[in-house]
Amino acid sequence: MNDSLREACGVCGVWNHTHASVLTYYALYALQHRGQESAGIAVSRGQNRPLALHRGVGLVAEVFDGADLDRLQGESAIGHVHYGRSGDSSMLNAQPLVVRLRSGSLGISHNGNLINGTELRRQLEQSGSIFQTTSDAEVLAHLTARAGREDIETNLLAALRQVRGAYALAILTPEAMFAARDPHGLRPLSLGRVGDGWMVASETCALDTAGAEFVRDVEPGEFVRIDGEDVHSSRISNSDVRPAPCVFEYIYFARPDSNLAGRNVHQVRKRLGEYLAQDHPVVADVASGVPDSSISAATGYAEAADIPYEMGLVRNRYIGRTFIQPEDRLRQLGVNLKLNPLDMVIRDARVVLVDDSIVRGTTSRILVQLLREAGAREIHLRISSPPYRYPCRYGIDTSSRGDLIAAGRTVDEIEQLVGADSLRYLSEDRIAEAAGGSRDDFCTACFSGCYPVSVAGDDADPHRGRDECE
Amino acid sequence: MNDSLREACGVCGVWNHTHASVLTYYALYALQHRGQESAGIAVSRGQNRPLALHRGVGLVAEVFDGADLDRLQGESAIGHVHYGRSGDSSMLNAQPLVVRLRSGSLGISHNGNLINGTELRRQLEQSGSIFQTTSDAEVLAHLTARAGREDIETNLLAALRQVRGAYALAILTPEAMFAARDPHGLRPLSLGRVGDGWMVASETCALDTAGAEFVRDVEPGEFVRIDGEDVHSSRISNSDVRPAPCVFEYIYFARPDSNLAGRNVHQVRKRLGEYLAQDHPVVADVASGVPDSSISAATGYAEAADIPYEMGLVRNRYIGRTFIQPEDRLRQLGVNLKLNPLDMVIRDARVVLVDDSIVRGTTSRILVQLLREAGAREIHLRISSPPYRYPCRYGIDTSSRGDLIAAGRTVDEIEQLVGADSLRYLSEDRIAEAAGGSRDDFCTACFSGCYPVSVAGDDADPHRGRDECE
Amino acid sequence: MNDSLREACGVCGVWNHTHASVLTYYALYALQHRGQESAGIAVSRGQNRPLALHRGVGLVAEVFDGADLDRLQGESAIGHVHYGRSGDSSMLNAQPLVVRLRSGSLGISHNGNLINGTELRRQLEQSGSIFQTTSDAEVLAHLTARAGREDIETNLLAALRQVRGAYALAILTPEAMFAARDPHGLRPLSLGRVGDGWMVASETCALDTAGAEFVRDVEPGEFVRIDGEDVHSSRISNSDVRPAPCVFEYIYFARPDSNLAGRNVHQVRKRLGEYLAQDHPVVADVASGVPDSSISAATGYAEAADIPYEMGLVRNRYIGRTFIQPEDRLRQLGVNLKLNPLDMVIRDARVVLVDDSIVRGTTSRILVQLLREAGAREIHLRISSPPYRYPCRYGIDTSSRGDLIAAGRTVDEIEQLVGADSLRYLSEDRIAEAAGGSRDDFCTACFSGCYPVSVAGDDADPHRGRDECE
Amino acid sequence: MNDSLREACGVCGVWNHTHASVLTYYALYALQHRGQESAGIAVSRGQNRPLALHRGVGLVAEVFDGADLDRLQGESAIGHVHYGRSGDSSMLNAQPLVVRLRSGSLGISHNGNLINGTELRRQLEQSGSIFQTTSDAEVLAHLTARAGREDIETNLLAALRQVRGAYALAILTPEAMFAARDPHGLRPLSLGRVGDGWMVASETCALDTAGAEFVRDVEPGEFVRIDGEDVHSSRISNSDVRPAPCVFEYIYFARPDSNLAGRNVHQVRKRLGEYLAQDHPVVADVASGVPDSSISAATGYAEAADIPYEMGLVRNRYIGRTFIQPEDRLRQLGVNLKLNPLDMVIRDARVVLVDDSIVRGTTSRILVQLLREAGAREIHLRISSPPYRYPCRYGIDTSSRGDLIAAGRTVDEIEQLVGADSLRYLSEDRIAEAAGGSRDDFCTACFSGCYPVSVAGDDADPHRGRDECE
Repeated sequence: MNDSLREACGVCGVWNHTHASVLTYYALYALQHRGQESAGIAVSRGQNRPLALHRGVGLVAEVFDGADLDRLQGESAIGHVHYGRSGDSSMLNAQPLVVRLRSGSLGISHNGNLINGTELRRQLEQSGSIFQTTSDAEVLAHLTARAGREDIETNLLAALRQVRGAYALAILTPEAMFAARDPHGLRPLSLGRVGDGWMVASETCALDTAGAEFVRDVEPGEFVRIDGEDVHSSRISNSDVRPAPCVFEYIYFARPDSNLAGRNVHQVRKRLGEYLAQDHPVVADVASGVPDSSISAATGYAEAADIPYEMGLVRNRYIGRTFIQPEDRLRQLGVNLKLNPLDMVIRDARVVLVDDSIVRGTTSRILVQLLREAGAREIHLRISSPPYRYPCRYGIDTSSRGDLIAAGRTVDEIEQLVGADSLRYLSEDRIAEAAGGSRDDFCTACFSGCYPVSVAGDDADPHRGRDECE
Repeated sequence: MNDSLREACGVCGVWNHTHASVLTYYALYALQHRGQESAGIAVSRGQNRPLALHRGVGLVAEVFDGADLDRLQGESAIGHVHYGRSGDSSMLNAQPLVVRLRSGSLGISHNGNLINGTELRRQLEQSGSIFQTTSDAEVLAHLTARAGREDIETNLLAALRQVRGAYALAILTPEAMFAARDPHGLRPLSLGRVGDGWMVASETCALDTAGAEFVRDVEPGEFVRIDGEDVHSSRISNSDVRPAPCVFEYIYFARPDSNLAGRNVHQVRKRLGEYLAQDHPVVADVASGVPDSSISAATGYAEAADIPYEMGLVRNRYIGRTFIQPEDRLRQLGVNLKLNPLDMVIRDARVVLVDDSIVRGTTSRILVQLLREAGAREIHLRISSPPYRYPCRYGIDTSSRGDLIAAGRTVDEIEQLVGADSLRYLSEDRIAEAAGGSRDDFCTACFSGCYPVSVAGDDADPHRGRDECE
Repeated sequence: MNDSLREACGVCGVWNHTHASVLTYYALYALQHRGQESAGIAVSRGQNRPLALHRGVGLVAEVFDGADLDRLQGESAIGHVHYGRSGDSSMLNAQPLVVRLRSGSLGISHNGNLINGTELRRQLEQSGSIFQTTSDAEVLAHLTARAGREDIETNLLAALRQVRGAYALAILTPEAMFAARDPHGLRPLSLGRVGDGWMVASETCALDTAGAEFVRDVEPGEFVRIDGEDVHSSRISNSDVRPAPCVFEYIYFARPDSNLAGRNVHQVRKRLGEYLAQDHPVVADVASGVPDSSISAATGYAEAADIPYEMGLVRNRYIGRTFIQPEDRLRQLGVNLKLNPLDMVIRDARVVLVDDSIVRGTTSRILVQLLREAGAREIHLRISSPPYRYPCRYGIDTSSRGDLIAAGRTVDEIEQLVGADSLRYLSEDRIAEAAGGSRDDFCTACFSGCYPVSVAGDDADPHRGRDECE
Repeated sequence: MNDSLREACGVCGVWNHTHASVLTYYALYALQHRGQESAGIAVSRGQNRPLALHRGVGLVAEVFDGADLDRLQGESAIGHVHYGRSGDSSMLNAQPLVVRLRSGSLGISHNGNLINGTELRRQLEQSGSIFQTTSDAEVLAHLTARAGREDIETNLLAALRQVRGAYALAILTPEAMFAARDPHGLRPLSLGRVGDGWMVASETCALDTAGAEFVRDVEPGEFVRIDGEDVHSSRISNSDVRPAPCVFEYIYFARPDSNLAGRNVHQVRKRLGEYLAQDHPVVADVASGVPDSSISAATGYAEAADIPYEMGLVRNRYIGRTFIQPEDRLRQLGVNLKLNPLDMVIRDARVVLVDDSIVRGTTSRILVQLLREAGAREIHLRISSPPYRYPCRYGIDTSSRGDLIAAGRTVDEIEQLVGADSLRYLSEDRIAEAAGGSRDDFCTACFSGCYPVSVAGDDADPHRGRDECE
C-alpha cells in the first residue's frame, strides 16, 4: 500500500511554434513528477483537420519514440501526464481527450477534480450522452458540445460555468489554444512566451525546460484564448470568489525549481524548515531530511538551528515500475530498498529528521526504526506541515480518511505510533506565512477540513472564508 | 501498396459460460483472417458493474496474455478483430466499443459499414454529441443512448432502424447479449450453443474452434436477444427487403471450413474452379492455384479439366508485421519473398493459374512474370470471379475505383496488362449458382455496380432488385 | 508435449555482395521452417576487423529490425536459424558463433549433430579449453584454434577430420567464406551465384528467395573455400564413405519448392502419395492431407486413386509463440485450435487421410477422432513413410525412443491405438525410389535403426552399407 | 558526447541463503550506479550441475522479471552490473561469465581492468584458445582452465598470479564462492554476513540493502574462499605491494551511504568541501552543488564558509535510455533538460558552485552559462579534486587524454575556458587527508600520471611509491 500523496496530473500546451510537439514532450518530461502512469500529446495540423493524438501507458520517455513525435507535426500542441485513481484503467483515462463535436476537433488536458462531476454525468446520461472514460475531461467535452452556440469559446465558457471544483486546463482546437483555471485557483497554471508563440504549463519548471520565458500565472477564474499574437482573457465567473490555491503544492507537490504565485518553492520550503526550528526547537547533533522532497526544509532547519545538515538517508534512484518488491519475509530479514541510513552519520547522534508530511504513517515508522537500528541516540521528527487529517477533493490522490494516521488522533498519539522521541508539526499559519499570505489565502482543507468548494454548491457567498467544514 | 481486398472485421460473443473470455479469445483467433490490426474483448462482470475491456494493436496472440485473460473473468463476453481503413488510428478504432449510458454499461462489436454513418454523425454532432472515434459502433451507441426509452432492447432496435448499410453486431450489457444482422444480411453471422450457453460469431469456423455447436445463421434483418436459456428474435425492419449477402465471402473472405447459409465455402470454391474449367477450357499440362485462397478453386479446375493439380507456387508463411520488405533495387535483382515458383513443375509446362480475383493487378503481373522466368511455356490465368470493377461500400477495404485494374477496361486489356497468354473470368451467374442461388440473391455490387443499399436511402421498394447502379 | 519432428537448424552465407546481410536476412526467412527459436547474422567488415554479429531469440522478422541490418554493413555474411534441443538456453546457443582465435575472427553456422561431440568436449576440457555454450559449433571452433597451423583453411580441415556425425556448415572469416558437408552428406547444402558473388544455403528455396541462381549442391564430404571469383573444392576425408543424405528431408523437412540432389521435393512427395495409392489401395470417396506438409502426397494419392482431393482439414495459420493454449478441460469441451475438419466434406464419406509420419501418435489419434465426430464413415490413414521407430542422431529433434508410438509395435497395434479403420505405411524401398535411389543411398536410420555413422567410430569400412544397427 | 566518468562495473555474491538470487538482485539494484548497461545473475543449483544464468541489456529492474528470478533458484549466486566501453557490444560482454571447464561450471563477475589483458589474450590465442567476448573475465577463465591442477582454488590462484591490474572479483562454482581483490586494492570489495550465509559486494550499501551485516573489507591482495561456515583467506601475491585504492571512489563513484576502508563516503566528501572553503575562500552569498554527486561537498563548503547552502540547480530524475535528446537548434533556443537553475536563488547572488571534477569541461561551461543567464552576479567554481589530467587504466571509462580539458592546461586556462569568475581545485594531499591517509596510500594516477601498476610489469619494488609516471 502506498504511503504518499500523489498529484493527479500535469498539463501543458504550446501555441504557434515550429517544434510544438517536441517542446510539449520536453514540458511533459519536466512535469513527470505530477503523473507517471500515462502521457499523451495532441497536435493541431491546421484548420478543419482533426487533431492528431498519441497517448500511452508509462513515462514520457517510454510513451513516445522519435517516430511518434515525427507523426505529431504541427504548430500547436497540448500534453498531459496522468496518475490514475485506484481502479482506473490507466489507458482509458490517458489524456489529452480528443473529441469531434459540431465545431470540429477539440482536445482537453485537465488537472484537478470536479466535485459535481458525478452529478453532471448522471444528468448527461439522462439526456442521452454516452461516456467512454471516467475522466472529468469527458464531462467538460459533453457540456461544451451541448452548449449549443456556434462559437467554441462561448461553449467552453458555458461548460466551465456549470462545473464546480478544481481545474487547470489546456485546451486545443485547430483554430485556438485555451487555458483556464478554476475560480479558487486550486491547481497551478502558468503562462509563458516561446519564440513568437505561447506556452502554458502546470509549473514554471516546464517553461524553463522548454526554453520558454515566464510571463505570468493564469489567474484563478481566468479563461484565456490564444489564437494569434495576443492573449485574450475573460472571467469564468462573475462572483467574487476568494482564491484558494492548494497549499500542498508549496509543501510537497511542485518541483523546487518552480515558482508559484511569484515565490520559489525551494525557498518557501527552506523557510518552513526555519520556522520548524524556531517553533519546535530541540537539542540535537544533526538535521537530516527525507530525500528528495524534504531536503530544502531540512537545510532550512539546520541553518536556523545552527547544527550541521547531514545526509542521514540516501535514496536509490533507479526504482522503476517493473521493479520486484521484496516479500514481507525479506523485509523482516532487513532487505531495505528505497532509503538507506548512513550509519556513521547517525550512530550515537541526536537526529532531527525533517519530513514534509505524514499520510498513513507507515513510512515514518519504518524510518524511525531504520535510524534506531543505525544507532541514533534520539530521533526528533519535524513535519513541515500540519497534521494531514482530511482527504483532498481537488485532484490529489490520498488514502481515505480512515487510512490517515492523523485523522482523529492527537500529535502525542501519532508520536507514539511512529515511535519518535518527539514529533512536532508546523502550524497552518506558518505555512501560509512562508507562502506569503494568511490561512484564508489558501486551500488548507486537508489540515482543517474546511473545503473552499462545497459539494452542495452553496459557496455563493464569496466572503465566507471556508465554505464547508467537516 | 496493398493489392488485396481486406475484410473489415470479425465479431463474436459468448453468453453464459464459465470460460466466456477464453472462448471468445479462441473464437477471435479463428476469425483472425478477418482483421489483423487490433483485437479486443469486453466481458460482463455481473449486474450493475461496468463491462471490463481489454483491447490492443496486433494479432490476438499478441494483444492478450494470460494475465489479461485472467482479468477478464465473467460469464459473458464479446470480441472483435479489426482492420483499419487507411488513415485510421488503429488503437482509437479498436473494438469492442464500451460506453456508459443511462441504462448502464454497453459493449458493441461491429462488422460492416453504415452508408449513412457520416450523415448520422453530422446530425448527432449538431445536437450536441461528441465523437472519440471514427467507428460506426460509436454512431450506434449514440443513437441508442438518445432513443430515450428505459429499455435497452427497445433503444437498440430504435437505433438500428435509423441506420442504413451493412452490419453484423455482437452487443453486450450486464443483463443480456444481443446480435443483429442488417436487413440485406450483407455480412455473415451465425448462432451456436456452447455448453448451457450461447455463442454468436461472424463465421462457423469460430463456433467449431470454441467447441460450440452450430444452431443456425442469424437471419438478415433479425435482432436477437439472449438473456437466459432462450433466444428471443425480432425483426429490425417491417419492410420486406430482399436479402443480399456478400458474394465475396464465398469467393475470398470466409475461411474454407466455414459454412455460409448452409454451404461449405471450400466446396463452393471448388465448384467455381469446375465452372471455370467448363466455361473457359484451355489445353494445359498442369493447374495451380495462388496459395492459400485459390487452392480450392484450382483443385476443382484440375479435376474438371482432368489435368494434374500441382503446387506451382509456394507461400512463405512467416511474414509478420515487422518484416523488412526488400527495396525496389533488390526486387529487381530477384529477391522474391512471398511466393516462390516450383521450377521443376513449371518448366516447359502449359500452366493454368487459378486466382480468386484481380484487384490492382500488380500481383498478377508479378506472378505471370515469375512463372515465365521459371520456364512456363504458356500461362493461362483463370479468375474464379467476375472483373472487380466497383469499390465495396459495405465493409470491405478496397482501393478506390481508379486503382481497380478492371474499372473501365475490357478483359482483353487486362490480359495484356498482366501479360498472361490468356485471361478469363467467371460470370456473376456462375458465382451465384455455385453459392446456391441467382444473381438477385446476393450483393454483387463490386462486379455490377448495382448497390442493394443506396446512399440516398431510396431503397424502400423491397422488390427493386438492384437499388442503385453506377 | 510436442508431437512433431523438428529440424535442428538452417544455415546460409553470402560472399561478395553489396547487400550481403540483407540477402542473408531474406535467405534465413526462407529457411525459417528449419528453426524458429533464434536467428543470427555475422558479417565481415573487411580485413583484420572482427566480424559484426547480431543474434536474438524469435523469428527472423522479430530478431532483426532495420537498424540492426544497417549496423551489419559488409560484403559477406553468414546466417543461422535454430531450434533448441530440450533444456537448451535458446539465447546461449543462438548462432552464428563468432570467436576470435590466433588467425583472427571466425564465424560458424552449423546444421547437424556431432556424435562424438561430447567426447571431444571432454578431451578439450581436459587440455584446458573452456565452453560457454553447448553447441557443436563451439567444439569445431576449439578444434580449429588448436590445430596449430597458420592457415585457417588447414586448421578448419584438421578440425573437420576429427569430428564424426552430421554437419552442413557456413563459415566466415574476413578473408574467405567456407562451406562444408559431412562425408555422408546427411544434411543438405547448396551453392549458388548471386550477382558477382556466391551464396550457400541449406535449401535451394533460400537461393530463389535471395535472387541467387542455383549452381550445384555441395557434395557429401566436400570442403569449399570462396575468397574471390572462384570456388575451391577439397575433400574432407580420403576414405570412400558412402553418401547417405537424410531421407526425411524429402518426406517432411524441406520446403516443397526446394530441390534436393536435383529432385523437387513437392514432386517427390506427390510420387509418395501415388505409391501409397498403388501399394495400399482402399475404396474411398475423398482423399485429404494433413496441412501443410502432407498436401503434396495427398494430391498424388487422389490422382493415382482417381478420387477427389478435398480439403478435409483447415489449419489456422496465426498461432505464434505467445499463443495461450487451452487447458485440458477446454479441450475436452471441444476447443480445437490448430486443425478444423470440414464437416460437409467429411460427413458420411469414406476418407483417406494422408500424413507424412506418426511420431508420438497423439496428433493422429486426435485427427481420427475429429474426423469421426465430423461424421466420416470410414477413416483410412495412409503414411507417406515407414514407421518411425528410432531416434535421429544427426540433427533432428525427436522424442526419445520410448515416446515413439511405432517403437516395438506392429502396424496393427498402431492402427488400434490411433483408432483408424485402416493404417498403412509406405516401405523404405518406395521412399528411396521416389527420391531416385535405393535404400543404401540414404540415411533411413529412423526407420531401420541402422545408423550410417556409428558412435563407436568403427565405420571405417566404406562398403559396409549400414554401419551400426540397433 | 559524454562528459562524465563512468565506473566500469559492480559485483556481488551471496553464499548459502534460501533467497540467494533475490538478495543478489537487490544488491545489484543498490550497485546500479556502477553500471547501467547490462545486468546478470548466475546461481548454483547444487553439485555437478551447471550454474544457471540470466543476463540482459538494461537496468536491473528491466533485465529481470519475477519469472526470471523464479528460474534462478539456488542457495548461492553472483551478480554483475556493467558499463560497456565504447565499441563493446553490450550483450556480448554482459557478465557474470559462465563457462564449463574440466573442474565443472564456473561463474565470474569482474570489476576492474587488467593492464596485461591484451598481452595475455595474444598468448592464449597463440596456444589455441578462442575468445567469444572482449572481457577480462574470459581471460581469467582461460588462465584458470589452463592452470592444469585438479583443484579449482589452486587454478584460480594460479590464474590471478599471472594478471596485472585492477580486479575485484566474485566467483562461483557449485562447490564454493570465491572473492578476490588485486594486490593494490584498486577497486573496492566488502564482505558481510547474511543470515547463516555470506555476502560480498563492491560497496557496503549493497550489503545494507540486502539486509547483510558488514564484517570487513576484502583486503588488497586477498583471496577468499567460502564453502561452508567459514571464510578461508590466502594471499594472491607474496610480494609486499603497497595498497593503492582508487581515490576517485571517495570523490565521485561510490554511493554516499557506502563506507570505504571504514570511512563514510558522504562524510569524506563533506570534508572535501570544508577543505575547499578553507584553502580557496571567496566572498559569496550562497554555496550550491551540482546534483547529485556534489551535494555533500557543497554542504561542507557552506558550513565551513558560513554561508547558506542553497539548491541552485535542480536535476530532472526521469531521464531514461530511450529519452529523445533535443537537437542542437532546440538547445540554442533554450531547451534545457537535465539541470534547471533556480532563478530566485541565483539572481544577483555571488554563487560558489561546487562540483566533484571536470572531465571534458562541456558541462561546466554550460552550467556557468545557465547560472549567468539566471542572473548570478559572480560564479566561483570549486572542484573537490585536483585537475583530472590522465586517463584511468584500472576500470574507469574516461575520455582519452586529448579530451581531458585539464590535460596540458593550467588552472587559469581552464578557468577561462569554462567562463567562471574563479576556478579552484583541491590538492592531492587534501584528498588523501580527507580519506584518512597520505598521497602514497591511494592511486591518484588520474591527477599525477603516476600509475601504481606499470604496463611494463616492472613494479617489483614494493617500496617504490609510484611505479610509473607519465
